[in-house]
Amino acid sequence: MSRGFEQREFETRLNAAQTLMQEAGLGALLLTTEPDVRYFTGYLTRFWESPSRPWFLIVPASGKPVAVIPSIGAALMSQTWIEDIRTWRAPDPLDDGVSLLTNTLNALTRGAVGTPMGYESHLRMPLGDWKRVQAGLHGDACEDAGIMARLRGVKSSAEIAKIENACGIAARAFARVPEIAAEGVPLSQVFRDFQRLCLEEGADWVPYLAGASEQGGYGDVISPASDRPLSAGDVLMLDTGLVHDGYFCDYDRNFAVGPPTEHIAAAHARLIYAIDEAADVARAGTTAAQLFHAMDRIVTGGQGGSDAGRLGHGLGMQLTEGLSITPQDHTVLEPGMVITLEPGIETGPGKMLVHEENIVITDGAPRFLSPRAPATMVQL
Amino acid sequence: MSRGFEQREFETRLNAAQTLMQEAGLGALLLTTEPDVRYFTGYLTRFWESPSRPWFLIVPASGKPVAVIPSIGAALMSQTWIEDIRTWRAPDPLDDGVSLLTNTLNALTRGAVGTPMGYESHLRMPLGDWKRVQAGLHGDACEDAGIMARLRGVKSSAEIAKIENACGIAARAFARVPEIAAEGVPLSQVFRDFQRLCLEEGADWVPYLAGASEQGGYGDVISPASDRPLSAGDVLMLDTGLVHDGYFCDYDRNFAVGPPTEHIAAAHARLIYAIDEAADVARAGTTAAQLFHAMDRIVTGGQGGSDAGRLGHGLGMQLTEGLSITPQDHTVLEPGMVITLEPGIETGPGKMLVHEENIVITDGAPRFLSPRAPATMVQL
Repeated sequence: MSRGFEQREFETRLNAAQTLMQEAGLGALLLTTEPDVRYFTGYLTRFWESPSRPWFLIVPASGKPVAVIPSIGAALMSQTWIEDIRTWRAPDPLDDGVSLLTNTLNALTRGAVGTPMGYESHLRMPLGDWKRVQAGLHGDACEDAGIMARLRGVKSSAEIAKIENACGIAARAFARVPEIAAEGVPLSQVFRDFQRLCLEEGADWVPYLAGASEQGGYGDVISPASDRPLSAGDVLMLDTGLVHDGYFCDYDRNFAVGPPTEHIAAAHARLIYAIDEAADVARAGTTAAQLFHAMDRIVTGGQGGSDAGRLGHGLGMQLTEGLSITPQDHTVLEPGMVITLEPGIETGPGKMLVHEENIVITDGAPRFLSPRAPATMVQL
Repeated sequence: MSRGFEQREFETRLNAAQTLMQEAGLGALLLTTEPDVRYFTGYLTRFWESPSRPWFLIVPASGKPVAVIPSIGAALMSQTWIEDIRTWRAPDPLDDGVSLLTNTLNALTRGAVGTPMGYESHLRMPLGDWKRVQAGLHGDACEDAGIMARLRGVKSSAEIAKIENACGIAARAFARVPEIAAEGVPLSQVFRDFQRLCLEEGADWVPYLAGASEQGGYGDVISPASDRPLSAGDVLMLDTGLVHDGYFCDYDRNFAVGPPTEHIAAAHARLIYAIDEAADVARAGTTAAQLFHAMDRIVTGGQGGSDAGRLGHGLGMQLTEGLSITPQDHTVLEPGMVITLEPGIETGPGKMLVHEENIVITDGAPRFLSPRAPATMVQL
């Protein structure tokens, strides 16, 4: 599939943002994080791995976004549709873009400057510099009125195609797990080889891999891999967020090392049943909380959840973004939202199984972007 | 090599922090980023890829650090030396750890709470929540007096061994580049395969890979790979930050696709010469700025740098951290500092070559952690 987006995609995003900005009375948006900057520009680089330099994108009330960035990024930014690119030689410990940013904002607006300050957000610049920017602004610095979360929460068809493509790559890698995982292979080796499979099947990179292999379920789903060899009776779980063209998939698969016990086989089947139930209610108009209860009824009998804290979340330019499937999140599902369904079930004291699929909300039934796993676990 | 650290390592770090905190009059440190939390705990997980949940570590004026974290992380944190682990079921849009953090800080100190706010830092939590925490604190929230930067800037011998190990993995992968790169192979395929080689040679994961393949030098060192095939006359550059046990290497290699022109061969040799010159002055007591000028004399004739902004930087738990080799950075080198030397040279209008090595400052001459590249480029 082709990389990047048509310019029309960015124009649509910008128009939507400027409409919401007008409603909220904002003179500009100030964006500092990789996905927020990329959302309006298409600026894609792994260079954000370095925390040294701040990057800024300003969305004015009218007209195209203005990039205020380190000069090392000018060549790549000039390949995007952005025309107004202002640079400084970062990093500069004396003035790391602060005066250039402040002057540019003041030239663009005397109104309020909104920046994401809510749930899941952070400001990717030093707090000390942020104070200096605020002190120099003509207008107030305030919250972005949830605009970025609202915009990014609903995906375009081009974005959905990219996420589906990432899901397909992971599916091909998962199908090859029997090549790399068997009794006696250290889990750390399985992790390395699974990342290799993801790359071979077309991932650009593999920002996230977690999992476990333990007897009768696992105690933890976020640990790095140990060198312990897989052994009969283990459940091996691999959960990957791989990236293609800047968009993630995020789903997992469970494998039985040797024949699974009836208890484990039933727990896995129950997770798949929870996915069925969630898919039945995942419609435009349903809330995230309703989706939570649909699954929680199946996996805990309706106890209100577990320490994982949620049974799924939004997905796209980040491994996790947007809504959380929790009793407290009343976000209303809309067509174009891409979410994970991630029920977990206790299999013993301190032991669990977790299963995850990726879906897109439509006008009717949700469409699975990850090819659904069958109720029966693959046996290694 | 064994994973993790002896508990003594963390005790030493904590003691050093508490000494500096006392000098600065701080009642506690509040840490929110992955490397800062890991520095005192050893808590290692790729779960930070998800931006959804904030994580907090408090370093009190005396006694062990206190973790205030999402409940999903409790099992893994309890495997570290940290004993006081307080959790909430994150994400919670109504109170995502704010009251638990505020109450815990207030119970631990009525003094000032320092958090990194300077150069290269950011606060990994929503700004709105940070305002709520500040409003609830008994003491003031202030800058950490540069304590984290100062501590993390000088590595222990155990940390240096981990970085050297990562460098060795990359060296083995670089040695195998002729297996995967040749005229006609798309650059995107080379990128995929090089990450695979890094994994095969022992990387836990490959958070960073950048590079280029262009005629007579490249215009950019941070772009993602295009599908353009390598062609005779290209210089292929691969720059990787791979991770083993939580520590990075960060260096690059240049390869000539077909015989290099005399001009390119000479430019590459000049970069190696710049490394020689830097190694001659990279001693305890030298400043980062002096190191800059030693290389800048060779690569620009002393013009004061380029748009890259720096000729190297600190390295360790992050791809880049700590000092920058710029004319403005007067950080004094100390034994145990691990840095990259990264001179770049213009090879034509908008074209350059960049070379990078990793060294550790000692009591005498620096020790190269990356095996030095010869002056002659490897030809593919």
